[in-house]
Amino acid sequence: MKFGGTSMAGTERIRRVARIVQRQQAAGHEVAVVVSAMSGETDRLVNFCREADPLYDPAEYDVVVAAGEQVTSGLLAMHLQAIGAKARSWLGWQLPVRTDDAHAKARIEGIDSDALLASMAAGEIAVIPGFQGVTAGGRITTLGRGGSDTSAVAVAAAIGADRCDIYTDVDGVYTTDPRIVAKARKLKYVTYEEMLELASVGSKVLQTRSVSLAMKEKVRVQVLSSFIDDDAPAADTIPGTMIVSDEELEGIDMERQLITGIAADKNEAKITLTRIADRPGAVAQIFGPLAAANINVDMIIQNIAKDKGETDVTFTVPGADLARTQALLESQKEAIGYYRMISDGKVAKISVVGVGMKSHAGVAATMFRSLADRGINIQAISTSEIKVSVLIDADETELAVRVLHSAYELDASDEAA
Amino acid sequence: MKFGGTSMAGTERIRRVARIVQRQQAAGHEVAVVVSAMSGETDRLVNFCREADPLYDPAEYDVVVAAGEQVTSGLLAMHLQAIGAKARSWLGWQLPVRTDDAHAKARIEGIDSDALLASMAAGEIAVIPGFQGVTAGGRITTLGRGGSDTSAVAVAAAIGADRCDIYTDVDGVYTTDPRIVAKARKLKYVTYEEMLELASVGSKVLQTRSVSLAMKEKVRVQVLSSFIDDDAPAADTIPGTMIVSDEELEGIDMERQLITGIAADKNEAKITLTRIADRPGAVAQIFGPLAAANINVDMIIQNIAKDKGETDVTFTVPGADLARTQALLESQKEAIGYYRMISDGKVAKISVVGVGMKSHAGVAATMFRSLADRGINIQAISTSEIKVSVLIDADETELAVRVLHSAYELDASDEAA
Repeated sequence: MKFGGTSMAGTERIRRVARIVQRQQAAGHEVAVVVSAMSGETDRLVNFCREADPLYDPAEYDVVVAAGEQVTSGLLAMHLQAIGAKARSWLGWQLPVRTDDAHAKARIEGIDSDALLASMAAGEIAVIPGFQGVTAGGRITTLGRGGSDTSAVAVAAAIGADRCDIYTDVDGVYTTDPRIVAKARKLKYVTYEEMLELASVGSKVLQTRSVSLAMKEKVRVQVLSSFIDDDAPAADTIPGTMIVSDEELEGIDMERQLITGIAADKNEAKITLTRIADRPGAVAQIFGPLAAANINVDMIIQNIAKDKGETDVTFTVPGADLARTQALLESQKEAIGYYRMISDGKVAKISVVGVGMKSHAGVAATMFRSLADRGINIQAISTSEIKVSVLIDADETELAVRVLHSAYELDASDEAA
Repeated sequence: MKFGGTSMAGTERIRRVARIVQRQQAAGHEVAVVVSAMSGETDRLVNFCREADPLYDPAEYDVVVAAGEQVTSGLLAMHLQAIGAKARSWLGWQLPVRTDDAHAKARIEGIDSDALLASMAAGEIAVIPGFQGVTAGGRITTLGRGGSDTSAVAVAAAIGADRCDIYTDVDGVYTTDPRIVAKARKLKYVTYEEMLELASVGSKVLQTRSVSLAMKEKVRVQVLSSFIDDDAPAADTIPGTMIVSDEELEGIDMERQLITGIAADKNEAKITLTRIADRPGAVAQIFGPLAAANINVDMIIQNIAKDKGETDVTFTVPGADLARTQALLESQKEAIGYYRMISDGKVAKISVVGVGMKSHAGVAATMFRSLADRGINIQAISTSEIKVSVLIDADETELAVRVLHSAYELDASDEAA
């Protein structure tokens, strides 16, 4: 079980978490719990680091910020004891959660589970601070922001858990953002691949990295709400969304929908460089420097070469990196040899995602036609095996999502809603 | 060097501490720094523990509260790096600071100094969170409130430091509380024994335990202010008060004053049990149960037995324990066999302390006469080799301290002041 910062924010909420955890134990499960820091705490600690030294030493940063989860792990163990459960905390260096040396963005190399399994078999609930680990040299590391989801999946894999339940402030994964489409449906199942595509286009229910790890380690992950009624009887029914492999889902749900969900991401910016010489290496001239500057380029569209041996190149970058990208390309104008740079920060990427589309043609066609019918102009297109994305004017985001949600028949029927 | 919570409270203050530390390194010293949590932080964490479980598990309490010093140790290392010094943090479990298993009040068994000495020899400033250690079983411990002073002395002993500088919010040890006597003088030197007596009677500049450890390990401790001008040139003069052994002081200061200081403690309460049978074991009947209840009895006076084979017993306990003591003695009334219990929470203990009194008679006589001359009634007396204490009405505390400060000629001359 994993609980995020909102669920751990203060005594009353941690008490509630303790009851939810105890219910699972009462239902016959051996339980390990991974916790985040109280919401706001990591930001507070990160601020202290930035004030101390703008170029702070990531090894010391890890010492400071890991303290947030250390506190909540000890507190949850106490809360569990207070209601009669056996519990103890296991810090990253105590298990240990072994990571590489990449401080502030460490990768988990392994988790020693012997002590943990023995403790759990003896009826103790193991409480583990997320986000933290330890290097071979014995220094504290952290996994990067949102790393607690990854910690939870890694612990689940290490102990061979039946399930990794991730409690969040939403009660599952929806066909689309319910704030945009009132008739959005909660999905019972979603595959790892779909979840990855949904996460990468803005449905930030889980950290992408945790989903990749779950897929690799074959950990069944459930997303569910921590704000459920904690006095309800424990049950092994699935109140949230279960993230499983494509194979497992085949066995469960033969009549799957073509499209699983629709995601929107407004945090993109579009840049077009015009009249670039249509010669080998020209595109590398653009994207090499961007990669070196750690700017993540997403969609790339190269228009058909014009008569004069020139071409336009359009691509998207995270909105937060737009200014930096512009400055960088401006400085490279001669080397790249473009005529004009045209930027647009007011774009949105709309994606339809579904494993089902692998075997069905016409998904993209339905998308383009539905949008065109409502006068929504498509500025760029990209596709993967289980996703079609288009770039549109940001002002049309909500309209586009609603149009597509209906077009793919995802709207909940009145009875089901 | 050790810095308390007030010195570590926020970015600006930690930055100031970093400059003070760097100056010592620039003056040619190898430096280890022990830090407290930001002031208020430990209280905040302790409150979370109490809210979690009034009977909290001390092992989990240690996990939670040790986080406060972990944060400041990482931050100070960053601040030092920001001004160009080499620095790194060493957590209690990393050195390790080995302690017993008495969670929340652990005792240090030893500190492995090899890695620390190697790091310091390489020019790195070692930053060590105070208050924390680790058991042989690898669980976090804390030393009890105020334990960072003890951590600092223990680290100084482990690395064979020339000096342990404890930075506080006062600039040294005074002949008495300067808020009571404007002409109180800052002492250049004080012996361990004097410091222990002064600490035990209310001059809480240092934690008593840290002074005992310094005496045992022969660590020279200096008390000085962290609010000095941090841009002043580094110098090896002594701006604070140096706590040394009796022998060292003999060599430095032959013409020592008879009396080193005068301390007042209002946190005492007096209890008298009247008409107790004057027989063997009667007193044990009183103090056995109090000891079992962990109530610290200080002064004990048994009056001369009266005609009828009965006696009155008067003693003092910490004011905070008065109600508990009364309830306990009430329940033991039959077993002890006293007639009445008379309590007084409005008493103060005034003590004159000085190693010099060992070789001079008349110290006590001067005290009694001076107080009598001003009409101050003495309710009880206790003495040790280097201390005479009297119990008086709490309302007369300040008057008594001023009278005695003058009587023993401790007032600073106008030039010296």
